[in-house]
Amino acid sequence: MGVVVKLPGPRDPQASLAPLVALVEEDMAHVNRIILDRARSNVDLIPELARHLIDSGGKRLRPMLTIAAAKLCGYHGDAHVRLAASVEFMHTATLLHDDVVDESSLRRGKTAARLLWGNEASVLVGDFLLGQAFKMMVDVGSLGALRILSDAAAVIAEGEVMQLITAKNTETTEDDYLAVIDAKTAALFAAAAEVGAVIAERPKSEAAALRSYGRNLGLAFQLVDDALDYSGEPSKLGKSVGDDFREGKITLPVVLCYRRGNASERAFWERTLKEGDVGEDDLAKAVDLIARHNALIDTMERARHYGAIARDALAIFPESDVKAALLEAIEFSIERPF
Amino acid sequence: MGVVVKLPGPRDPQASLAPLVALVEEDMAHVNRIILDRARSNVDLIPELARHLIDSGGKRLRPMLTIAAAKLCGYHGDAHVRLAASVEFMHTATLLHDDVVDESSLRRGKTAARLLWGNEASVLVGDFLLGQAFKMMVDVGSLGALRILSDAAAVIAEGEVMQLITAKNTETTEDDYLAVIDAKTAALFAAAAEVGAVIAERPKSEAAALRSYGRNLGLAFQLVDDALDYSGEPSKLGKSVGDDFREGKITLPVVLCYRRGNASERAFWERTLKEGDVGEDDLAKAVDLIARHNALIDTMERARHYGAIARDALAIFPESDVKAALLEAIEFSIERPF
Repeated sequence: MGVVVKLPGPRDPQASLAPLVALVEEDMAHVNRIILDRARSNVDLIPELARHLIDSGGKRLRPMLTIAAAKLCGYHGDAHVRLAASVEFMHTATLLHDDVVDESSLRRGKTAARLLWGNEASVLVGDFLLGQAFKMMVDVGSLGALRILSDAAAVIAEGEVMQLITAKNTETTEDDYLAVIDAKTAALFAAAAEVGAVIAERPKSEAAALRSYGRNLGLAFQLVDDALDYSGEPSKLGKSVGDDFREGKITLPVVLCYRRGNASERAFWERTLKEGDVGEDDLAKAVDLIARHNALIDTMERARHYGAIARDALAIFPESDVKAALLEAIEFSIERPF
Repeated sequence: MGVVVKLPGPRDPQASLAPLVALVEEDMAHVNRIILDRARSNVDLIPELARHLIDSGGKRLRPMLTIAAAKLCGYHGDAHVRLAASVEFMHTATLLHDDVVDESSLRRGKTAARLLWGNEASVLVGDFLLGQAFKMMVDVGSLGALRILSDAAAVIAEGEVMQLITAKNTETTEDDYLAVIDAKTAALFAAAAEVGAVIAERPKSEAAALRSYGRNLGLAFQLVDDALDYSGEPSKLGKSVGDDFREGKITLPVVLCYRRGNASERAFWERTLKEGDVGEDDLAKAVDLIARHNALIDTMERARHYGAIARDALAIFPESDVKAALLEAIEFSIERPF
C-alpha cells in the first residue's frame, strides 16, 4: 500500500470542527430531516441509493457553512435550513456523477453506489437530487440565492469537465490545477457561505466577505484532500489512499513533484499517470518521490496560504462565537487527518 | 434489419409542423442564438460536445411549445425565448445522460456524443447544460416558471429511474409504462407549454389547459416514438430501428404483444428482452409478432386517444392561427414518419 508519510503536525492541537458543529447542531438536525424527506420517491431505488450516501454522513461541511453564515449575519427564519439542504443535495449529486466519471470503488468509506446499483442509477439519481435541490431553492423564493446557487451548479460542472481534460496530463501547471479546484470545489463552498448573508439581507460587503471565506476555505480543503490521498490512513479517510494516483488524476503534489523531478522521475510519472501503466510498487515509489521533493509539505503550505485569506475575509465581522467557530473550521480543514 | 411494417397512413395528409414552425420562426432564431451563446465555455470540450448535439437539430418541439403557448396567451416580452432555451437545454441534458444509460450509438442521426467524447464527458456536459438552464430561468425571474420547470426536472429524473427499473421486465403493465412516459417525456412537454401562460400572467385555467395540452401531446409523441422504433426508416428516424429491442426497453408495442402472445411467444420476449440474448433474426421476428398482434396499430390508437385529449384541452382558447398550428402539431406528432 505504499509508505505512509505523516503530514506536519497541527499547529493548533485543539483545531477542531467541534465548536462549529455545536453551534449549528439544532439547525443541522432540521437540515437532516429535510434531506431524508426530500430524498423520498415512489420509485424505491431513489431513496435507497440516496440514503446509502446520505446515511454514510460525510462531514456535511457545506450545509454547515450556510447555517453558520446565516447565523453570523443575524438571520432569524427557516430559509437557511432549506438552502443548506439544497447545498448538500447539490454536493451529493456531484459525488454520484463524480464516482461514475472516476470509476471509484469507495465513497465515504462505503462501496460506491455505482458498484451496487450501476452507473446508470448513479447518473439518474444524481439528476433527481439536483432537481430536488432546485425545487427547494425555488420554494425559499430568494432570487438572489437562486442566482448564486445556479451559477455554482454550472461552474462546478465546468470544473469537473476541466478535471477530466487535465487528467493524465503531466504538463498541467499549478495554475491549471487551481482553476480546476476553484470551480469543482471552491465554487460550492463560496456559494454555500454567501447565500447565508443573502437571505439575511445583509449588505453586499458581508455577502462578498462570506463568499471569499467560503471560496478560500474550499481551496484549502481541496488541497489538503489531495495531499491526504498520498498520505492519509484509509480507515479514517473513507476512501483508498492512492485513488488519485491510480486514476491518473493530476493534483498539486504531483504537479510539484513532476516539475521538480529529473528526467527519469518524469518518465515515471508519464508511465504511471499519462499511460496508466501502474505496477504493484508504483504507489510506494510515488509517495517516496513526493516526500523527497517536499511536495506534500508545500501543498500544505499552499493550503495555509488560502486559509489565511479565508481568515482575513471574516475580519469585517465583529467577534462572536460563530465567527470564532468559522475561524477554527479553517484550522480544522488544514490540519485534519481525514 | 427486420421487416419494416408501414404504419397506417395519415388521416390528414397535410398534417405538418409547418404552420407552427412558421409562426415561431422569428422567436426560434432568437432561441437558437441564446442556445449557442449559453453553450459557450472557456473549457473547449463543453461547446464542442454541446454543439454536436445542438447543431444536429432535432425538431425543437419543446421550445416551440413554450414560444407558441406564450403567443397564444398574448405575451409581449422576451422571457419566453429565454425560457424556451432553458427547456431545450433541459432536454439536451437529458439526452446526454440518457445515452450514457442506454449505451446508445446513434442520436439525432449522428454518432452519440458518449462514443466520441466518452461517458464521463456526456455526464458532465449534461450537468453543465442543466446548470445553464437554471441560470437562464433565474435570470427571467419568474418564480412561477421556476417552480414548474424545477418540478419537471425532478420528475423527469424519477421517470428515467423508473424506466431503468422496468427495463428487461416483460411483466410491465400498460399502466407502469404510462407512468414512465408521463414522467420522462410528458412532464417536460407539459411544463414547456404551461410556462408560456405563466409568464403571460394569464389565469390558472389557461395555464392548466396548456399544461394538459402539453402533457397529452407528450404522451402521444412518446407512444409514436416507441412505435417507430419497430417500424420507422432509420435514415429518417435519426436513430437505429430496433434500438429499444436491443436495449431490452419495455415499450407499449412489446407490452401489448407479450400479453396477447402464447407461451412460446412469451418465451421469445423473455429470452430477448429479459435475458438480452438477441440473435440475428430476432428483430425481424419481434417486428413480425408485433404486427401479428396488431400491437403497433393499437399503440397508434392509444396515441390518438391522448391526441384527442390534447385537442380538447385547447378548446377554451378562441380560434387563432396559433391555436390552429398547435392543433395541427398534434396531428403531426401522431402521423409523422420520423
